[in-house]
Amino acid sequence: MDKLFFMNDYGEGAHPLVMQRLMETNLEHTCGYGLDAYSLRAQELIREKTGQPGAAVHMMTGGTSANMIALCAFLRPYEAAIAAEGGHINVHETGAVEGSGHKVLVAEGSEGKVSAEGVRAVCLRHTDEHMVHPRLLYISQPTEIGTVYSLAELRALRAVCDEQGLILFVDGARLGSALTSEGCDVTLRDLAALADCFYIGGTKNGLLFGEAMVIVNPVLQKDFRFMIKNRGGMMAKGRLCGLMFLTALEHDDYFAWARHANEMADIVRGAMRRAGIPCYQETVTNQIFPIVTEAQRKHLEERVAFERWSDLPDGRCVIRFVTSWATRREEAEALAGVLEAL
Amino acid sequence: MDKLFFMNDYGEGAHPLVMQRLMETNLEHTCGYGLDAYSLRAQELIREKTGQPGAAVHMMTGGTSANMIALCAFLRPYEAAIAAEGGHINVHETGAVEGSGHKVLVAEGSEGKVSAEGVRAVCLRHTDEHMVHPRLLYISQPTEIGTVYSLAELRALRAVCDEQGLILFVDGARLGSALTSEGCDVTLRDLAALADCFYIGGTKNGLLFGEAMVIVNPVLQKDFRFMIKNRGGMMAKGRLCGLMFLTALEHDDYFAWARHANEMADIVRGAMRRAGIPCYQETVTNQIFPIVTEAQRKHLEERVAFERWSDLPDGRCVIRFVTSWATRREEAEALAGVLEAL
Amino acid sequence: MDKLFFMNDYGEGAHPLVMQRLMETNLEHTCGYGLDAYSLRAQELIREKTGQPGAAVHMMTGGTSANMIALCAFLRPYEAAIAAEGGHINVHETGAVEGSGHKVLVAEGSEGKVSAEGVRAVCLRHTDEHMVHPRLLYISQPTEIGTVYSLAELRALRAVCDEQGLILFVDGARLGSALTSEGCDVTLRDLAALADCFYIGGTKNGLLFGEAMVIVNPVLQKDFRFMIKNRGGMMAKGRLCGLMFLTALEHDDYFAWARHANEMADIVRGAMRRAGIPCYQETVTNQIFPIVTEAQRKHLEERVAFERWSDLPDGRCVIRFVTSWATRREEAEALAGVLEAL
Amino acid sequence: MDKLFFMNDYGEGAHPLVMQRLMETNLEHTCGYGLDAYSLRAQELIREKTGQPGAAVHMMTGGTSANMIALCAFLRPYEAAIAAEGGHINVHETGAVEGSGHKVLVAEGSEGKVSAEGVRAVCLRHTDEHMVHPRLLYISQPTEIGTVYSLAELRALRAVCDEQGLILFVDGARLGSALTSEGCDVTLRDLAALADCFYIGGTKNGLLFGEAMVIVNPVLQKDFRFMIKNRGGMMAKGRLCGLMFLTALEHDDYFAWARHANEMADIVRGAMRRAGIPCYQETVTNQIFPIVTEAQRKHLEERVAFERWSDLPDGRCVIRFVTSWATRREEAEALAGVLEAL
Repeated sequence: MDKLFFMNDYGEGAHPLVMQRLMETNLEHTCGYGLDAYSLRAQELIREKTGQPGAAVHMMTGGTSANMIALCAFLRPYEAAIAAEGGHINVHETGAVEGSGHKVLVAEGSEGKVSAEGVRAVCLRHTDEHMVHPRLLYISQPTEIGTVYSLAELRALRAVCDEQGLILFVDGARLGSALTSEGCDVTLRDLAALADCFYIGGTKNGLLFGEAMVIVNPVLQKDFRFMIKNRGGMMAKGRLCGLMFLTALEHDDYFAWARHANEMADIVRGAMRRAGIPCYQETVTNQIFPIVTEAQRKHLEERVAFERWSDLPDGRCVIRFVTSWATRREEAEALAGVLEAL
Repeated sequence: MDKLFFMNDYGEGAHPLVMQRLMETNLEHTCGYGLDAYSLRAQELIREKTGQPGAAVHMMTGGTSANMIALCAFLRPYEAAIAAEGGHINVHETGAVEGSGHKVLVAEGSEGKVSAEGVRAVCLRHTDEHMVHPRLLYISQPTEIGTVYSLAELRALRAVCDEQGLILFVDGARLGSALTSEGCDVTLRDLAALADCFYIGGTKNGLLFGEAMVIVNPVLQKDFRFMIKNRGGMMAKGRLCGLMFLTALEHDDYFAWARHANEMADIVRGAMRRAGIPCYQETVTNQIFPIVTEAQRKHLEERVAFERWSDLPDGRCVIRFVTSWATRREEAEALAGVLEAL
Repeated sequence: MDKLFFMNDYGEGAHPLVMQRLMETNLEHTCGYGLDAYSLRAQELIREKTGQPGAAVHMMTGGTSANMIALCAFLRPYEAAIAAEGGHINVHETGAVEGSGHKVLVAEGSEGKVSAEGVRAVCLRHTDEHMVHPRLLYISQPTEIGTVYSLAELRALRAVCDEQGLILFVDGARLGSALTSEGCDVTLRDLAALADCFYIGGTKNGLLFGEAMVIVNPVLQKDFRFMIKNRGGMMAKGRLCGLMFLTALEHDDYFAWARHANEMADIVRGAMRRAGIPCYQETVTNQIFPIVTEAQRKHLEERVAFERWSDLPDGRCVIRFVTSWATRREEAEALAGVLEAL
Repeated sequence: MDKLFFMNDYGEGAHPLVMQRLMETNLEHTCGYGLDAYSLRAQELIREKTGQPGAAVHMMTGGTSANMIALCAFLRPYEAAIAAEGGHINVHETGAVEGSGHKVLVAEGSEGKVSAEGVRAVCLRHTDEHMVHPRLLYISQPTEIGTVYSLAELRALRAVCDEQGLILFVDGARLGSALTSEGCDVTLRDLAALADCFYIGGTKNGLLFGEAMVIVNPVLQKDFRFMIKNRGGMMAKGRLCGLMFLTALEHDDYFAWARHANEMADIVRGAMRRAGIPCYQETVTNQIFPIVTEAQRKHLEERVAFERWSDLPDGRCVIRFVTSWATRREEAEALAGVLEAL
């Protein structure tokens, strides 16, 4: 019997609707590099849905590439990004941002988030020309450990960005999961109104690949396609990304898929509560971080595919379950059963 | 009526066989980042077909990204690549190689190719520490203008690389078209035996995207996955590329598709000869460069989608037709008819 | 007997007046990094002498560092510099500009210079986002082979820069020699009025080291000190450079030294004319490029230190004599005698 | 009356002996770029004094440039340096190391130093290809806050470097002060035997500028001059640095100057102990970090030039006194008197 798959949300293919549209259009001829009609319609649709008619929208091939290219476009060589300790650009991109010449400064915060005070403190410590100049705040919504910024928190970050002259950049690799989470009071329009730039992640929510970069601030829009090409991020068959985002967004399926992933996670969270299994970090999105004993982990491993996240000093370990648009209800319930029987 | 499409070979989707396999496997769960079973099998298959059991094979997202990452991995900061004047890295990648810190030096040659003497001359001009150190020879097979290096030419380049301490790197974005061309006496195994590193282009021959990088020289293989990630070229759903290359190569369909493209080009070339339409550059692969008058160009434009390549001093212009796996015989014959009636 | 030294102009120490001032102030305490009173006065003096009260002036450690830092500050990653084929940044800086991420494009011209038409042609060839975007014109006054741009030529370049949106950057490593040459109708104020940024070279005209960067265009001035530090070009004892430029410029000795170098070169040029020794390139500054036979070269080598510049196809070679502030009249006359007796 | 100068050690000129030698040789002609006889003799002398006949020695223009160029030469793009939180490359170089593409990882430790366990922990946390690969340990001897690594500590770091495959790089901007400190049991030969690469700082100990880079590990020596030039660090008048180091080292004056600075610091430290003024960090080298009240600071400011280092939560602040070869005994005693009278 196959194991229950809760390993990650990028181990899936694309949503069948997306595959169907790729099949239907496969023999069409289009111009390349994202200048085709599907890409243009997807861009227009995103401008509408975000309430930002002046935004520039670009289809990117993946998260690391998207982060690297944006930061490279927005920062001068001596300017730095601020991120949380566990921020994806700080830890999990093999130094892609530094590889493009920029330091990543760490701001304090909690629950995987940065706080406005933490960001301000970094700025106040970097005051002279012998230090890098903090110029961009990088956050992820949701964070790398599944927590979400509330609207009040985002507004406080926007305020400190205004105060300190920072660009607010939001990594939305799992944005759908945040926006459709019951624990999150932020809408897509809120986010677009607050951020200078953000992206809507497709890879982890129903697409084969792709992130839709939304550059709201017009000052940052100049020549972005040159930057994409300069860093190897421009796809010849740009149609693919455009079409996939169009499919996902035109009837809001994107949000339905993400909501489904959250609901599946809720089923698992409920079981954990009933079984008294502690969480390393309470989350409201599609990632769950149980703390288990070594015996429990081994037992789980026989039935479930998941990731070992980290080891605790007391011998227990943190594991990670991730749900997705593709997680079936019976799978979530099966995992719930396994957890309650631990 | 739709125009006949001879605009380019990346304006197509994927071959139906590739799409079918993507559909069939779409709901499978795999691990990410190209470590899945499909990717591993594709890598093994490529090692077999190239006759290089010790080669490292990596799936890349596109040509510019592949070139940039390889050169970045192979060169130290003061080391330079040598390329033809029209080499893709020299002209059409928005400075991606320089963006990674390396100068591109131009070597003499003809027909879009570099000559061994041209390469040697560049090396002999760069002799001291105030100049960059030439360290890698970049060629494309076929070249950007559709010509191919013969086996003798490749051997001469290999010899000058050995003599001057250069890495021989082959951009194979359209490799299928070269290897299956009647005008080319080079086999895949020949290429693999002569090059330090090359790639098999998928984007322009039946895949949605992807290039299979084959690092033959073991000295160059170290930590290549770190480099891919560091430059934003690692796909979360690495399975896609692996599966597509597996599909294309396991029964040699890849070569059949490329041969078909060449045959369709041959139909067009035949018509041009009969109609007395001159070529800017004689080619044996899937690109054709007719020289036409402005009146002819306008007439063609009504029926055919193609690219205007460059303008000649005498008022005529060079246009480009490109065929692909998807070009139907009746389309090639229709274009032939249009040309003969010019 | 020591050989007559015409090898180069950086094989000298500093002018005795400069050394004297360094000695006199050696035990003073100053703040570091170019914020001391001498540096500030030198900056102010340069603003006055260039007629640019709004210019930002920075002391740089050397030519390659100055070029690299300025281009790095002024260009975005996908933007390129245009230079002459033999431009210092294109040939003799071990890829420092590319090492900072920028392509150097070559423009046509003659006598070591670029022409306005050549620059325009480069711009017109770079028209889409798959190519680098030309953004800065780099010229040297005098050029690497000792020729000078006339005022009319500079104005034509300024016009094409305005037309094409290019920054005009002037490498002035030997600026003194150009400005004091009888063959040059450009004044320091002319240059400052036409260039967006240029530097006044100290290393090759009487200082131990140092180039004074003058950023005339206010748009380019922002955060330049951050860039200097970021690329390792900020000297702890900034006082040195400030004091040396102050000494050189406060009574215009800088120009007297350069004029002397030119006069010494004129003595040599006169002898060459009388002796019928041809020039590879006619010059009006402190570099001279005689064409000599192998026998003549060997004979000269016994008495004179000079550089072998390049070999000609007919077996003769080009050599280079360089004069400086330190060349004594009797040395120039001695070389003249040797040449006339060849 | 002038204030007593304890602001820093780079606010001085050069030692009179150095100035004298610069004057004596000023009118000599030498070849450029550090290939002159003085530079070669200085290199040879350093090989002797360090007991490393196979070391490559290069004269660098300053500390940031030296650090940047060495790390750039030694690291591949995805490789990172490890440093102390307060490490110069991490805080005070405006991101020069990141500007060259490399992340700086912070290791735990105390007293401004990293510990072997801290270094190992960083390595153990960076285990996969989605993270940078730690490859070089950067330490300063003495540290940025004046403490020194003992021989046992250096040996422990060497061991962890061997265990984890790290290059050991030592920033010796104030190396003289460490090596001549009574609190330090490390000799120049010890350091050279343990480090893969280190430099002997001249700027802060008697030279106008310059750091002598000693690359002990032959694997790291290749093409270093290309790297220097590529990053703008090669001085035309290389003779200056060579001559200054030759002067400083040929009769060991370098160490006498540093010892003098330490003795002057000891006088101040004695006064602080007697006066009961606490230290932020106990030091044995030429930097002293008193904790003073605001009233004391203001009082001191009337008589003494020093730097305000940081503010403490209790309202007091940390200030910094720095001594140098140029600090006269009566100045140190005068400061001692001021402190005892606080």
